[in-house]
Amino acid sequence: MLADIEQIGRNPRTGGYRRDAWSSADMELREWFTHQAVKRGLTSHEDRNGNLWAWWGDPSRQGPGLVTGSHLDSVREGGAFDGPLGVASAFEAIDLLRGDGFQPDRPIGVACFTDEEGARFGVPCIGSRLLTGVLDPDRARGLRDDQGHSLDEVLTARGREPGRLGRDDETLAHVGVFVELHVEQGRALEVPVGVASAIWPHGRWRFDFRGTADHAGTTAFEDRDDPMLAYANAVLAARTQAEAHGVRATFGKVRVEPNNANAIPSLVTAWLDARGPETDAVRSLVARLAAGAEVTEESWTPEVTFDEVLRLRVACAAGIGGHPAPILPTAAGHDAGILASAGVPTAMLFVRNPTGVSHSPGEFAEPRDCVAGVIALAAVLADLSGGGA
Amino acid sequence: MLADIEQIGRNPRTGGYRRDAWSSADMELREWFTHQAVKRGLTSHEDRNGNLWAWWGDPSRQGPGLVTGSHLDSVREGGAFDGPLGVASAFEAIDLLRGDGFQPDRPIGVACFTDEEGARFGVPCIGSRLLTGVLDPDRARGLRDDQGHSLDEVLTARGREPGRLGRDDETLAHVGVFVELHVEQGRALEVPVGVASAIWPHGRWRFDFRGTADHAGTTAFEDRDDPMLAYANAVLAARTQAEAHGVRATFGKVRVEPNNANAIPSLVTAWLDARGPETDAVRSLVARLAAGAEVTEESWTPEVTFDEVLRLRVACAAGIGGHPAPILPTAAGHDAGILASAGVPTAMLFVRNPTGVSHSPGEFAEPRDCVAGVIALAAVLADLSGGGA
Repeated sequence: MLADIEQIGRNPRTGGYRRDAWSSADMELREWFTHQAVKRGLTSHEDRNGNLWAWWGDPSRQGPGLVTGSHLDSVREGGAFDGPLGVASAFEAIDLLRGDGFQPDRPIGVACFTDEEGARFGVPCIGSRLLTGVLDPDRARGLRDDQGHSLDEVLTARGREPGRLGRDDETLAHVGVFVELHVEQGRALEVPVGVASAIWPHGRWRFDFRGTADHAGTTAFEDRDDPMLAYANAVLAARTQAEAHGVRATFGKVRVEPNNANAIPSLVTAWLDARGPETDAVRSLVARLAAGAEVTEESWTPEVTFDEVLRLRVACAAGIGGHPAPILPTAAGHDAGILASAGVPTAMLFVRNPTGVSHSPGEFAEPRDCVAGVIALAAVLADLSGGGA
Repeated sequence: MLADIEQIGRNPRTGGYRRDAWSSADMELREWFTHQAVKRGLTSHEDRNGNLWAWWGDPSRQGPGLVTGSHLDSVREGGAFDGPLGVASAFEAIDLLRGDGFQPDRPIGVACFTDEEGARFGVPCIGSRLLTGVLDPDRARGLRDDQGHSLDEVLTARGREPGRLGRDDETLAHVGVFVELHVEQGRALEVPVGVASAIWPHGRWRFDFRGTADHAGTTAFEDRDDPMLAYANAVLAARTQAEAHGVRATFGKVRVEPNNANAIPSLVTAWLDARGPETDAVRSLVARLAAGAEVTEESWTPEVTFDEVLRLRVACAAGIGGHPAPILPTAAGHDAGILASAGVPTAMLFVRNPTGVSHSPGEFAEPRDCVAGVIALAAVLADLSGGGA
C-alpha cells in the first residue's frame, strides 16, 4: 500500500520526502486516507483539530473502540516509513481480519494524527496535543511557519475552522485503547516486531543568539558582536555536556539573519532537540547551555511509560511461535505518547529497522518485516477487540 | 534624491533593505535610474551584462569619457547608503555643474553596476566582473539563487539575453576614468570626504560540511556523523586564526539540509568572507580552515592599489579650503576595484560614516556630509573633465 503514495512529496534528486502539514503533499495524503476508508466501507471523518478517523463500527452507539494508526506527514527530507507505515498497516490489518471472516466485539478505528513531526510550525504532535488539551489552541493558532504564515491562516486557507481547535472530549471518548505501529528508529530490535516499554522524556528549545549586523570586511574584531560565535560554542558544549550527562542533544535546524556572506549576522536562531532516560539530566543540560541566548521551550513531553498489563498482552499477541515480542524503550516521540499521557491505555508496536537510520531518505524496513508487522497488528486487534471469526 | 527610493525593498519592521539583483525592487530601482537620466536629457542604455549607463555627451563620437556612479542593489537587510549614495550623488553632481553653466571637454557618464553585493547569486560585482571579462559568462549563467533559479533563467524571465553576457570591450572603451563615490564602511574618516588608497585583497569561499542525516533522538553519539560539529569548530577556528594572523574572517551565511529540529543534518553549507592587508595571510587562513570541508572559491579579488597620480589629483580637487582630502585604505570590495584591476584609471571618494556600521539597517551618513560628498564629486568631475563655465 505504501507504493500508492511513494511519489507524493518526494524529492526525485534525493529520494527524501517533504510532507509538511497542510501542504499540497499533505492534502494528497489526506485524500488517500479518506479514499482507503471509503473503499473499505469505513466511516471516515476529520475532527476539529484536523486529525482523520476511519471507523469499522460506530463508537457513538457501541461505545469506545480500539484505535490504531499513526501519521502521514514527514520531517523534511524524511523517509518513506516514519508515519505512513503505521497508517497503511492499520488498513491492511483490517483487510486481514476481514479476510478471515473476523467480527470484532467493539468498533475498530484507524487514526491519522495531523502534524506529528512539527516540521512546519516547530511543535511536534500538534494534532494529538490539541485533541488531548495539552496544547493551548491560542498558542497553536499563532504558530508560524518559515514563510511567516500562522497556523490560523493556513487552516483558514484550507477551508478549516481554526476557531474550533482545542480539547475534544467527544472524539477522545471514542478511543478506548490506542495501538500505534511504527518503524523502529534505532537498531535495538533484532526480530521483525517489538513492543514499546517507554518513551524518553524529550523536548525542543529555540535558542536566539542576538548580535549586531555589520560589514564583514570593514568591522574590526574588537568592534564586533557576532552571534555566530556564541552559537558555535553552544553546538560544541551541547555535545560535550550531553556525553558527560548521558543524554542526547542536537542542533539540527538553524536560521540566520540576514544571512549575507559579507555581513555579520544580527541573529542566529537554532533549535535544540534534547532527550534522555532521566528528566533531570535533560533539563539541567538545557539550563547549562542557555547562557548567552534567549531560550524558549517550544515543546516538552514528559517520560511516558506504557501500561504494563496492556504491553504484556500486546507482546504476547504480537509474538511468533509462543515467544512474546521483545519489549524495548524508545528515544523517539510519538502521538502514542501524547495519548498515553492523557490517560488513554496505549501500546506501540515497532517494525525492525536494519540500519537504524530514520528522519532521512535512507530510512528502511524489509518488506517481509513490514508484512510481519501487519500480521502482528492484526493479531493484537483481534485479541483486544474481543471478537472472533 | 535618496528619499525618492527610500521605500523600495524596505522591510518596514526592521528598516533594512532587500534589493536582490533582478528582483522586483531592483527593477523599480533600474526604472528610477533611467527616469533620472531621461529627466536630465542624458542618453541612457543597459549594456549586455545588465549594467546601466547615462551619458552627458557621446563617447562613441567624442572619445572615452569620465564616469562616476556605483550600484543600487543591497545586501539583505542592508542600509540605505551602500550603493545608492554613489548613484544619486552622481546625478546631483551633474546638476551642480550644469547649474554653474559648466561645459565639460569630454563626455561625463553615470554608471550603475548590476549585482555588486552578490546577495542573490553568491558572487559579488557580477556586472563589473562580466564587463571586464574576469567572470566567465558560462559560470555566471550557471550561478543559482537560494530558490534554485539560475542567473540564466532569471535574466531570460526579465527579457534579457543571457547568451550575450561577457567581456564588453566596446562599453569598456568608453570609460576613460572611473570615480566611485561610496559611504565609508568603517570609522577611519574624521572629515566629511576622503579618497581611497587601496582595497584589501578579499574573497568568498563556500564550505560544504557533509554528514549523514538521521534521527536526533534515537541515534547514539557513536553512530553519528553530524556536520554541525565540524561547522562549529570552523567558526571558532576562523576567529582564532584570523586574530593570530592579522586578517578578518567571518561566517555570516549558513544553509542547513534538511534543517529539521529533530534530525541530524546531512549537509551544512557556510560561506567564509576573508580579507586582510596581506594576500598570503588571507590565503593561508583559508587553507588552514579547509580540513574536513569541501571548499569552493566563489570569488577572489586581488589587492587593488588606486592610481597614485590620479588619487592625489582627486584628493586635491575634493579637498576643502586648500587642504587635500585624506587618503585611506578600505577593507570593502567595490566595482571600482574591479575596474582598476582591469586597467581603467580609477579613484574612489568616501563619505564619512559616523558609526562605521554598514551592511545593516543602522548604516548612516549625515545629510551635510552627503552634500559635501556631492560638492567634492562635482569638483572632481570638473577638474578631470577639463571643461569650464
